Amino acid sequence: MPDTAQVTSDGNGRSGTDAPAGLEGVVVAHTQIGDVRGMEGFYHYRQYDAIELNRRRTLEDVWHLFFRGHLPDRAEREAFGREIASHRDLPAELVPFLRTLAVTDPFDPMTALRTAISFVAQRSGFRSWLDISADQLYDNAMQLSAQTPVLLAALHRLHSGQEPVAPDPQLPAAANYLYMLSGERQDPQRVWALERYLVSTIDHGFNSSTFTARVIASTGADIGSAVTGAIGALSGPLHGGAPSRVLEMLDDIGSPDRAEAWVRAAVGRGDRIMGFGHRVYKGKDPRSALLREVATTVGGPTADFATSVEDTIVRVLAEEKPGRALNANVEFYAGVVMDACGIPRELFTPTFASSRVIGWCAHVLEQVSGNRLIRPAARYDGQAPPEPVPASEQ
Amino acid sequence: MPDTAQVTSDGNGRSGTDAPAGLEGVVVAHTQIGDVRGMEGFYHYRQYDAIELNRRRTLEDVWHLFFRGHLPDRAEREAFGREIASHRDLPAELVPFLRTLAVTDPFDPMTALRTAISFVAQRSGFRSWLDISADQLYDNAMQLSAQTPVLLAALHRLHSGQEPVAPDPQLPAAANYLYMLSGERQDPQRVWALERYLVSTIDHGFNSSTFTARVIASTGADIGSAVTGAIGALSGPLHGGAPSRVLEMLDDIGSPDRAEAWVRAAVGRGDRIMGFGHRVYKGKDPRSALLREVATTVGGPTADFATSVEDTIVRVLAEEKPGRALNANVEFYAGVVMDACGIPRELFTPTFASSRVIGWCAHVLEQVSGNRLIRPAARYDGQAPPEPVPASEQ
Repeated sequence: MPDTAQVTSDGNGRSGTDAPAGLEGVVVAHTQIGDVRGMEGFYHYRQYDAIELNRRRTLEDVWHLFFRGHLPDRAEREAFGREIASHRDLPAELVPFLRTLAVTDPFDPMTALRTAISFVAQRSGFRSWLDISADQLYDNAMQLSAQTPVLLAALHRLHSGQEPVAPDPQLPAAANYLYMLSGERQDPQRVWALERYLVSTIDHGFNSSTFTARVIASTGADIGSAVTGAIGALSGPLHGGAPSRVLEMLDDIGSPDRAEAWVRAAVGRGDRIMGFGHRVYKGKDPRSALLREVATTVGGPTADFATSVEDTIVRVLAEEKPGRALNANVEFYAGVVMDACGIPRELFTPTFASSRVIGWCAHVLEQVSGNRLIRPAARYDGQAPPEPVPASEQ
Repeated sequence: MPDTAQVTSDGNGRSGTDAPAGLEGVVVAHTQIGDVRGMEGFYHYRQYDAIELNRRRTLEDVWHLFFRGHLPDRAEREAFGREIASHRDLPAELVPFLRTLAVTDPFDPMTALRTAISFVAQRSGFRSWLDISADQLYDNAMQLSAQTPVLLAALHRLHSGQEPVAPDPQLPAAANYLYMLSGERQDPQRVWALERYLVSTIDHGFNSSTFTARVIASTGADIGSAVTGAIGALSGPLHGGAPSRVLEMLDDIGSPDRAEAWVRAAVGRGDRIMGFGHRVYKGKDPRSALLREVATTVGGPTADFATSVEDTIVRVLAEEKPGRALNANVEFYAGVVMDACGIPRELFTPTFASSRVIGWCAHVLEQVSGNRLIRPAARYDGQAPPEPVPASEQ
């Protein structure tokens, strides 16, 4: 540990204390949006258990809870649905721009989404929240949350050489997303399964992308800047980038009887097992337990294989790494459920973004309601200044 | 103050301590890039006084110090200059994309730059730094730092109905930027003045945009995501967005003899005086002292007017807000110097970004060299969960 009596870089003569690496456990804000209790395997959205909410409510109801602070009654639900639908339309003028992103090689939907959101914010005239009303900022937040799945589906289809499918204002968000991707109405069980995944991932404490959105918003930047930055953070494999790697691992394992030998060999090589362990949940990840049920309900060969592999990996890890309690995290079943819903692997992380954007926007709305610029300090531990500047060799 | 004995949202049974609002003074990382000593009115780049470095070295020399850790000798300087020039070219295929951004209404160069950098990272095939070599990441960083002024100049010209001017590989960065903006070689004194501004703003501790870049990079995201997010943070008026407002204030004051009455009236109304006071510097901001000298050297009516107004404002603020020691910050003279260099007001914050990008990239290179995911916690202070989820009103 460094000497905490050094002067910190706030330079104000106070001796600061080093925060733990990665700010782990450091309370950087107060929130009324939700929380995670890692030791209890529990997380909540406002005052409700997020899992119970997921079992009993629609994505739109939970979205209303995030944006308006309470679950909607019937009239509020209908009004909110109309509001969402009114923000979904993809302006025709935007299609050539999206086509450029979709046909540029290399194409990655998260990267393209980052650029698309940045441009949508420009052409919609988003401005610093210091210069607009709370209603306008709320409207920007609704637009970004409603349009993200529309942009993703359009980018995916354009990249595949197909024209975008216009959103159907009659369809709820999850059904509409699957419809825009495929051009066909989807089986209700798939819609149900995808909706469970989306609701489970709207928010999860002060994760890196949510924190990024709040830091950017704290400068007075427009909400488009905050969401663009958050997409970038979520694109990092250490945060949002692993669900497709779980399916690659399942492919590599091949069959249930090979799982045990595969895991022992991977642990022996010191490889990280994709989809296991979590920085916050030291016991069970409640999202993976829910999504395991969802995967089992939808069924199919991948889901059956995955549950069998999970059991084997948990057992082997308990033996090979005793005391670590490594369990499946949300990413393990995220990929399995999305695969069962017909979502292609390259859209796994972007689909995660399409629900997390609701959480990011709710956090931006909360941040600006009692804003303080987020500007931490660092401790300089290089060569002591001031060293005289040597003359330049001409 | 909230009860610090509550369980924090890391949920691991530890009782966390609340960080000060905005993480002020909290040491979130160690760095060897530089530091700010607010009470001393001093800042440094690595082991050198940033002001002395600015007086004695070129932008390219300081850039080398940031990227390579030491000032270049003659051979290194020549090689580095060639490296920068090799990254400057604007691919012809990029021009139609930039034209789309430039002709989209409303146009704001920071917003357009955010989108342009995001797209450049895609078409250049930037990937997670977990999946590329250190040399490739360094090359990405050089590209972003070298191309940002080129993109800005092209966006500005396209927006003004002019074609982009190709960079001149013989010109150093500051001269080349002014040349690409105007299409003409610029007076050496203007080039010198702009270079002083650019060197003075490369880095400044863990400011919000630099912190944003490091949070995003900590997830394993590509450096394009980190810089795109940082541009968004810098676009916020509470961070990088005020230099043009200082000139608007000078316009509003109109003449030196009106300054005193104007300031007293503004303080009486409780208005914030643009370009005065700083969260870190409680005494003099060393950057504003340097840039005041630069403005005086370049001269011109705005520069003379500004120094007179600064003196008046400092005197009046000392009387009206005793004990606060409100001095001109970097933004006060930033606008004055850029105006004297012929840079249009709407490019003030983007020009700031064109040097700060060097600092952002250096911080990303440092972050990944000893990475730990940055994921803080929050304290939930809403209604206690779990509240039973009410049945949905159908």
